[in-house]
Amino acid sequence: MTLSSIPLKERPTLVRKACEALGVAGFIIPRGDEYLGEYVAPCSDRLAWLTGFTGSAGLAVILQDAAAVFSDGRYTVQMEEQVPHDLWERRHVSMEPASDWLEKNAQGARVGYDPKLVSRSMLASWSAPGVELVPLASNPIDQAWLDRPAAPANPVINHGVELAGEASSSKRHRLAAGVRKAGQDAVVLADCTSVAWLLNIRGSDVPLTPVAHGYGLLHADGQAELFVDPARLESGLAAALGEEVTVQAPSALERRLAALGGKVVRLDPVTTPVWFETTLKAAGASVVDGNDPCTLPKAVKNLTEQAGARQAHQRDGIAMARFLHSVSMSAAGQRETDLVERLGMFRQRSADYREQSFDAISASGPNGAYPHYRAEVGKDRVLPANSVYLIDSGGQYPFGTTDITRTLWVGPESAPQDVKEAFTRVLKGNIALSRVRFPSGTTGHRLDVLARAALWQVGLDYDHGTGHGIGSYLSVHEGPQNISPAPRPTALEAGMIVSNEPGYYEPGAYGIRIENLMLVKPSSYQGAKGVFLEFEILSYTPIDRELIDVTLLDDAELAWLNAYHAEVLTRVGPVVESDVQEWLEKVCAPMMRETPGIQ
Amino acid sequence: MTLSSIPLKERPTLVRKACEALGVAGFIIPRGDEYLGEYVAPCSDRLAWLTGFTGSAGLAVILQDAAAVFSDGRYTVQMEEQVPHDLWERRHVSMEPASDWLEKNAQGARVGYDPKLVSRSMLASWSAPGVELVPLASNPIDQAWLDRPAAPANPVINHGVELAGEASSSKRHRLAAGVRKAGQDAVVLADCTSVAWLLNIRGSDVPLTPVAHGYGLLHADGQAELFVDPARLESGLAAALGEEVTVQAPSALERRLAALGGKVVRLDPVTTPVWFETTLKAAGASVVDGNDPCTLPKAVKNLTEQAGARQAHQRDGIAMARFLHSVSMSAAGQRETDLVERLGMFRQRSADYREQSFDAISASGPNGAYPHYRAEVGKDRVLPANSVYLIDSGGQYPFGTTDITRTLWVGPESAPQDVKEAFTRVLKGNIALSRVRFPSGTTGHRLDVLARAALWQVGLDYDHGTGHGIGSYLSVHEGPQNISPAPRPTALEAGMIVSNEPGYYEPGAYGIRIENLMLVKPSSYQGAKGVFLEFEILSYTPIDRELIDVTLLDDAELAWLNAYHAEVLTRVGPVVESDVQEWLEKVCAPMMRETPGIQ
Repeated sequence: MTLSSIPLKERPTLVRKACEALGVAGFIIPRGDEYLGEYVAPCSDRLAWLTGFTGSAGLAVILQDAAAVFSDGRYTVQMEEQVPHDLWERRHVSMEPASDWLEKNAQGARVGYDPKLVSRSMLASWSAPGVELVPLASNPIDQAWLDRPAAPANPVINHGVELAGEASSSKRHRLAAGVRKAGQDAVVLADCTSVAWLLNIRGSDVPLTPVAHGYGLLHADGQAELFVDPARLESGLAAALGEEVTVQAPSALERRLAALGGKVVRLDPVTTPVWFETTLKAAGASVVDGNDPCTLPKAVKNLTEQAGARQAHQRDGIAMARFLHSVSMSAAGQRETDLVERLGMFRQRSADYREQSFDAISASGPNGAYPHYRAEVGKDRVLPANSVYLIDSGGQYPFGTTDITRTLWVGPESAPQDVKEAFTRVLKGNIALSRVRFPSGTTGHRLDVLARAALWQVGLDYDHGTGHGIGSYLSVHEGPQNISPAPRPTALEAGMIVSNEPGYYEPGAYGIRIENLMLVKPSSYQGAKGVFLEFEILSYTPIDRELIDVTLLDDAELAWLNAYHAEVLTRVGPVVESDVQEWLEKVCAPMMRETPGIQ
Repeated sequence: MTLSSIPLKERPTLVRKACEALGVAGFIIPRGDEYLGEYVAPCSDRLAWLTGFTGSAGLAVILQDAAAVFSDGRYTVQMEEQVPHDLWERRHVSMEPASDWLEKNAQGARVGYDPKLVSRSMLASWSAPGVELVPLASNPIDQAWLDRPAAPANPVINHGVELAGEASSSKRHRLAAGVRKAGQDAVVLADCTSVAWLLNIRGSDVPLTPVAHGYGLLHADGQAELFVDPARLESGLAAALGEEVTVQAPSALERRLAALGGKVVRLDPVTTPVWFETTLKAAGASVVDGNDPCTLPKAVKNLTEQAGARQAHQRDGIAMARFLHSVSMSAAGQRETDLVERLGMFRQRSADYREQSFDAISASGPNGAYPHYRAEVGKDRVLPANSVYLIDSGGQYPFGTTDITRTLWVGPESAPQDVKEAFTRVLKGNIALSRVRFPSGTTGHRLDVLARAALWQVGLDYDHGTGHGIGSYLSVHEGPQNISPAPRPTALEAGMIVSNEPGYYEPGAYGIRIENLMLVKPSSYQGAKGVFLEFEILSYTPIDRELIDVTLLDDAELAWLNAYHAEVLTRVGPVVESDVQEWLEKVCAPMMRETPGIQ
C-alpha cells in the first residue's frame, strides 16, 4: 500500500476540489507513470494513492458525483478487496470499458487527463461521444497528495561495453543512419529501457527493472541528449558517455523540444506521452510516427550479451538446483511466501545477483490455476502433502536477466494420472518448441501451435501466449518479438531471447507451467536449403520426473528430455555441494519406457 | 490463344487510335473481367487479345510510344514466349510494378481505365505521382476488337435445395437481418459465386467454375435482384426463384442503382468494380464498405453440402483409383498431357461428372518443381523411367467440387533416398495437419506450421500456403478461411472445407505435393475443456508407398497412414473392377517397420 498520512477515504474529495479549481468535472488517472512502464516508483503510484488498488494494470475515473476503478480479470478479487466500495465502482477494463462508463456518467462534461502520463492510444481508448477530454497543465492528484514521496534519485550507473558488447557511440551512429535515411532530424526516446540500451546506462529508480528514469533525444548526427539530473551520474559516467551525449536536468526538456521547431521529429505513439507531440507541434516541429528505433536492435543480443545470458543462467541454474533440492526435502508444510524467500536466499549466494526480475509467483494447488497469482504474507497457502506447486521467478544479473518456471509434485504419494498427463502434454509442447528449426523470416506466432498441439489433442489449452522477449539486465518482458496466437510482424532473428512457457490450468485444483528461456541462433543443421534458425536452451534446471508419464513421450521427445537432463547435470553438478549433486544425479538420470510411446 | 482475324502485331495500333479518340494518352487493361474472377470468358480475354499473353494473372499498360505487360514469376517464361518483344516490354508485376513504369513513362499524361473492370484496390496499386488515371465510359479495346466474341449466354440453371441444402429465401432473409442490423438498405453482390450461392443458381459462362455471369443486389427486406438476360433462365427457374427475386437484363443495372439514391448501400471494395461506387454516389446513395455478406456463410457448408462433398469425393476416389492403377501398369513413356486426358476419361465414367474444377497439373520430373506448371500438347514431357510424377486435379460434380494431388514414383528401380525422405517429410506434415484437434476460434494460419515442421527439421520448406477453402459446385479456390503463413482473421468453423497440401520442390529435379480435402467438424474427443474441432478427411486415394521411408514415421503417424489406407480400401475397393481392387489391396496394405521410428 502507498504510505500517506491522508486517509484513503478522504483522497477523492481532495482530488475533486483540485479538479474544480482546474475547471474540469473530473480526471482520468492511469496506473502508469511518465515512462508508461510496467513498474512505477512510489511517487508515481497515483492510482494506488487515490483508490487503494495496487494491481499492476488499471485506471480510475473520478467525477464530482461518481467514480470507478477499472482493471482486468487478473485483479478482479484484489480490486474488490482494496477499493472502498462506497467511493468507487469496480469495472472490468475490456468488458465494461472506461469509454462506456464516461459516455454514461460524464455527458456534456470536460474531463481532464495528464498529457505527461497518457499515450495517444490510451487517449483514443477513452474517447466517448459527448465527453470532452481535456489535457491539464497540472495534475490534480499531485496537488492533493501533499505527502507524495520525492522522485527517485538513485545513481545512474555505467553499463560498460564489457557487459553491453557495443559502445554507445556505435549504437547511436548506426541508428542515426536510419534516422537520416528516413529524412528525420531527431527521435524522441520515451521508453527508459531504450535510453538505457542506447546510452549503456542502468539505474534503480524502480524495482525489478534496472533503469534510470529519464527521457532521451537521438539526433540524426548520432548525438544524444539525456534528461536526468546530472548530479545523479555516478563518478566517471559523464566521461564514459562522452562529448556526443549531453546530460541535462528534466526541467530542460521542454526548452530542448522547443528548439526542434522546423525539424522533422519521429516519435513512437505507443510508448510516448501525448505531451511530447503537443509540445513539439506548438514549437513548429513536424512530428512523424515511427517505431522506437532501439526496440529491434535491443532485442537482438550481441555476442557479449549472449555470453552474459549464459552466465546469468548458470548462476540461476545453481540457485534453482539448491532450491529444488531443499524443497525435495521439505515442501509440505511450507508457506508460499517462505519459499519465495528461500529461493531469493539461494540466488543471493551469487555475488552477481542484484534483485528479482519480477515478483515471483509461488503458488500451491489451486493458487497455481491463476497464471498471475502473487502470494502475500499472511494470506498465502501452506503447501499440503500430495499437491502441485508452481514457482515462476527470475533474477537480474549485470550480464543478464533470467525467468524460469518449474512445477513440482509434493508427495509422498505419487501424482494422480490426470495431473501427470496434463504435465506431460505441457512438456511435449515445451519440447516441440525447443526442438523446432525454422526458416529465417519466420514470425513467432507461426510457432505458437507447436507448444499447444499435444494439449489440444486431448481438448486442453492455456489462455496466454507461449513466449515473450527478455532484456539484457533490463525488462523481463521485452518486445518486439513474441510467440503467441496474436500475429506480430517481427520475425525471430538470431540473437533474440524468448521464453518457452506452455501451461495448463485446472481451476480450483492446480496450475502447471514449464518455462525455459531460449536463444535464437543459426541452425547447425548441414544441408539446409536456405537460412534456418533454431533455439539454444539457456535455462538448465531439472523438470520434475514425478510428474512425467513417460509412455506419453515419443522417442524423439524422450531423447530430448534425457539429453536436457544430462546437460543440467554437466553444467550444474560439478559446482554444487555434494548433497545437491547427488540429488541432481538422481533427478537427471535417463528416463526409459518399456512399451512404445503413444502420442 | 484468342481467335481474331486482326493480326496480333496490329492490335496495339488500333487501341492507340481508340485512346486518342477518347482523349487519353493510353490505357491500362487488367487480366480480369467485370466479375474480377479467376477465369474469364473469351469475350473478356482482352489482355490476351491485345498482347498475346494468356497467363491467368497480369495486366498491360499501353501508351502512344511505349507499352508493357506485367505478370508474376509463374508466367515469366510464358510471357517471354507469347508477347511480341518489339511491341511490349515484359515486367515482373511486384518487383517492377506498373506504378513505377507509369511514373517513368507517363509523366503528366492522362491514362484511361475501364471502371467496370477495376476495383478500388487495383486502382490504388497503379497510382503514380504525376500520372492522372481517368475512368473511361467506353473501352478502347472493345472498340478496336471488331471480331470480339459475344458474351456467354448459356442457360442459368437451378441449383435445387436437394443440392444446396437451404432455400434461397432462407439464405436471403438471414443475410438481410444482418444488413438491417448494420443500418443498410442494400448490398451490391459483384462476385458471381456469391450470387450463385445466394440464389441457388449455377451456369456455364466460364470454364471450370459453374457460374452464370450476373451481378446481384440484396435488399434489407430479403428481396433480391439478379442482372442476367431473363431469356437465359432454364425452364422452371423463374418459378424456383420466386416473387422475391427480380430478374432483369444487365442493361437495367445502371437504372436500378440510380434508384438507390438516398439509401445506404454496402459494397465490398475488394470484389466490386469502382463503377458501382461512382454510379451509386452520382445517384446520391451513401456507399459504405463492408464484406460481401455471402462469403462466410458460403464457406460454411450445411449438412446437405457436406454429404454432397462426401459423394463427390467417393466418385473422385473411384476415378483416381482406376487412374493410379492404370498408371501403375504404364507410366514411363506416357506424355503429361495424355495422362490428364486419361484421368479425365476415368472421371467421365461417372454420369455426375461435369468438368474439371481447374486445369490439371500433370508434371514429370523437373516440371513438378513449378507448383503452377501446366503441360501443353506438343511441349510436354514424356515420363522417363525412374522419375517422380505429380498430378494435381479436381472435378466439378453438382453435389460438390474436388481437388486432389498425388505424387508417384515411376520405377522400375526403387526411389532414391533423398526423394523418399522429402516425400515422407511432406507426408508427416500432411498427417500432422490431418490429426490435429484445435479450439473453436482458431484461425488457419495458426495451424500452418504443423504441415511444415518435419520439413523444416532438415532445412526444407515450400513457398506456398498449405490450404485453401473450396466451393460446393463452385470455385475450387474459395475464401475467407485458409491455412497459410499469412494471417487472415477468419477462424475455421465446423462445415468449412479446406485443402491440406504441403509440398517440396527441388528445382531442376522434381516436385512433391500430397493434397487431401478436409471438412472441419466438432471434435469427437470426449472430455475436452471447451469446444474443440477436428478434420474429417474427404479424399480417399492411396499415397504412394514406394516413396515412403517408413523409418521416418513415428508410431502415431504410421497408425494414421495404415488407418487411412484401410479406409481407402473399404470405401473404394468394393465398387471397382477386380483388377483395380486387387491393386488397391496391395497398395493399401499396412506398412510396418522393425526398428523404432526416428523423427
